[in-house]
Amino acid sequence: MTATGVTATHCGFSPAWGDDPAAIVLAFDSFKGSLDAREACALAERAIINRLGESVAVSSFPMADGGEGSLELVLAGDCMETITVDVVDALGRPVRAEYGFDPARREAHIEIARAAGLPQVSDVPLQPLDASTAGVGRLATHALGRGARRIVLYLGGSATTDAGTGLLSALGVRFLDSAGQPIASGGGPLAAVVEIDITGLRSDARDVEWVVVTDVDAPLLGPLGAARVFGPQKGATPSDIDYLEQGLGQVASVLRAQTGVPVGELPGTGAAGGVAALLAAIAEVTFVSGGAFFAERSGLAAALSRAALVITGEGRLDSQSFTGKVVGTVTNLALAAPTPPAVAVVAGQIDRTGYSGHPGITAAFSLADGPADLSALTDTAGELLSRRCADVAALFVAGTSSPTATEGSA
Amino acid sequence: MTATGVTATHCGFSPAWGDDPAAIVLAFDSFKGSLDAREACALAERAIINRLGESVAVSSFPMADGGEGSLELVLAGDCMETITVDVVDALGRPVRAEYGFDPARREAHIEIARAAGLPQVSDVPLQPLDASTAGVGRLATHALGRGARRIVLYLGGSATTDAGTGLLSALGVRFLDSAGQPIASGGGPLAAVVEIDITGLRSDARDVEWVVVTDVDAPLLGPLGAARVFGPQKGATPSDIDYLEQGLGQVASVLRAQTGVPVGELPGTGAAGGVAALLAAIAEVTFVSGGAFFAERSGLAAALSRAALVITGEGRLDSQSFTGKVVGTVTNLALAAPTPPAVAVVAGQIDRTGYSGHPGITAAFSLADGPADLSALTDTAGELLSRRCADVAALFVAGTSSPTATEGSA
Repeated sequence: MTATGVTATHCGFSPAWGDDPAAIVLAFDSFKGSLDAREACALAERAIINRLGESVAVSSFPMADGGEGSLELVLAGDCMETITVDVVDALGRPVRAEYGFDPARREAHIEIARAAGLPQVSDVPLQPLDASTAGVGRLATHALGRGARRIVLYLGGSATTDAGTGLLSALGVRFLDSAGQPIASGGGPLAAVVEIDITGLRSDARDVEWVVVTDVDAPLLGPLGAARVFGPQKGATPSDIDYLEQGLGQVASVLRAQTGVPVGELPGTGAAGGVAALLAAIAEVTFVSGGAFFAERSGLAAALSRAALVITGEGRLDSQSFTGKVVGTVTNLALAAPTPPAVAVVAGQIDRTGYSGHPGITAAFSLADGPADLSALTDTAGELLSRRCADVAALFVAGTSSPTATEGSA
Repeated sequence: MTATGVTATHCGFSPAWGDDPAAIVLAFDSFKGSLDAREACALAERAIINRLGESVAVSSFPMADGGEGSLELVLAGDCMETITVDVVDALGRPVRAEYGFDPARREAHIEIARAAGLPQVSDVPLQPLDASTAGVGRLATHALGRGARRIVLYLGGSATTDAGTGLLSALGVRFLDSAGQPIASGGGPLAAVVEIDITGLRSDARDVEWVVVTDVDAPLLGPLGAARVFGPQKGATPSDIDYLEQGLGQVASVLRAQTGVPVGELPGTGAAGGVAALLAAIAEVTFVSGGAFFAERSGLAAALSRAALVITGEGRLDSQSFTGKVVGTVTNLALAAPTPPAVAVVAGQIDRTGYSGHPGITAAFSLADGPADLSALTDTAGELLSRRCADVAALFVAGTSSPTATEGSA
């Protein structure tokens, strides 16, 4: 493992994050496949100012939900060092991965998909039983070596279902079979574990504060757990899933016997193949939803208390939008403001089977100008988003200068 | 020709047309293939009141552009008699057609597509050279027999390119060839006309005021004329078009020689195969754009002077929307109000190649919730329109109760 570069130094997460009052707040998630969150905010901001002039105060708060795009957003922030390290992917093959390091806070930001991601291993047949978080462990040990006091893990997009045994092995934990031998890597061998030896765990890994940012509140085990829900998208067959579930249950059971912590049942432990499940029993781990994490870090809540209108959005508005994702988080924060601002959603698609309105959402519009297929929308998402946001802001602002809308005789 | 029924009596055009102040005005054209104008207004009105309550004053002004849907809208109005008459279609086959008669104004309302329409003759191969407006003539003579002092003709959707010779023949005009014999019906024989004998024209047809409502300002002749632009959609081949153009030119030339009126060049004379072109030289004919006609009749202009927001729309927002169509008319009327209301457009489709914004339009949204094909939008147009309009109104009204949108420090 070698640190191959530090490419940037920024302080804070985003140039726009601050305490300025904002009349119109933009708080977009990424539009997956077309726009990242910063692009979406920047395009919308420019379009609104072009339409309405500088007299409207627009503030941008690019958001993420802890999944894809999170680290990219973090690395774009002020005073954030981008550290590049040679590690391994989920199948143990060499790969170069970045993580973020905030020297002021001594805080590392690791997206596990960078070192255990599904896209990285999609060039070969999926190997759900072998995929390991060992590469994440190498990033973590590198960060600890840099003096990190807090490690923020962004979950989502992993190829693994190993309950974080690869990560923990890199930190010094040993997973032993009945012969007292370390098991092989991946989720498949977990069913053979009879002892978990945490005596070798690096003391700094135990002392560091782990923050797990995830958009998933699934537990490790059971019908809503890491293997049964997320196994199929990682290539697990039904029999693979049974086998992985058995292995996850085995390590959870062994660790519970040693520590008393019911790691199989904690919300969030099912995310990313259970990468933080065992860690939660042996170190200080805080699970936070991605939307809430980025909202808190960015000062969004304070901005919303002074906003008249917030425009948020993501690729798809559906029932998932309100489970820790950006749109739901922004909406709830808006509702919690002393004078709740109007909330407009601009989404690539509004799925009416999953979204039929929400008390905090004033209006929701899609990007589509009419009949169109997905690729046409994706190809022109920036232009469509710009127009839609300018229209939304203009319509709202037209209302502000029009005192008669609720007057007039019936 | 027999009057087979008078099915309804109403006074005025629409129940909603009146002088009440309106904070939110709805002025939709039909969404062709899915919603007529009254349905669109009714759905939007209900959705807005459901969302915002009775405190918002919503007034509906169903609109038409003179084309398809115009007579339907007229017949739905108050004090309008629906007269049903046995006439002929464009190919001379028996057909039953309705027209509207307002006994108070002694005003007849005739949609020429009811007696010379393309859909009526689509069961057989198109016969662009033979198609005739004779059936329209029968409707007109029936209306004259009822004592009409004004005949309003709604153009659009015709199968004919006969310069209205069928209509005029029914009124007593004779079109004679070099042998002094009346020519056969349709546009094809017109090239043989050497004399137009108007001595037999019914005196009441000359005395009546003709109002031609059309969304087309094309002249009868030339590259933008009745044959060259509209011939192809009526089944005319390139050689048919040349032949029709020659015939239209011939009758225009003969009539000009007799009357001095340059009938081939007047704007609007190219509409509906030139149905009103010759009429304009021998009677009092006023050409009005459909949007302006319906706006004036409905009292829309007065309502807009008291409105804070107007929502208009049609199936497709494009460059045509501003040439006498409903959206353009509504927008221009809004701009002309002492305090122009905000204008929001809700359209089935926004064609960005033809519409890239308009100074009077605050915001434009499509019906689409995301990727969708045309039939999916058409099938759910009512539901989509309801949601979109409720969102548009809610966003605007949220602005009215939010004084801070243009405040806040930069």
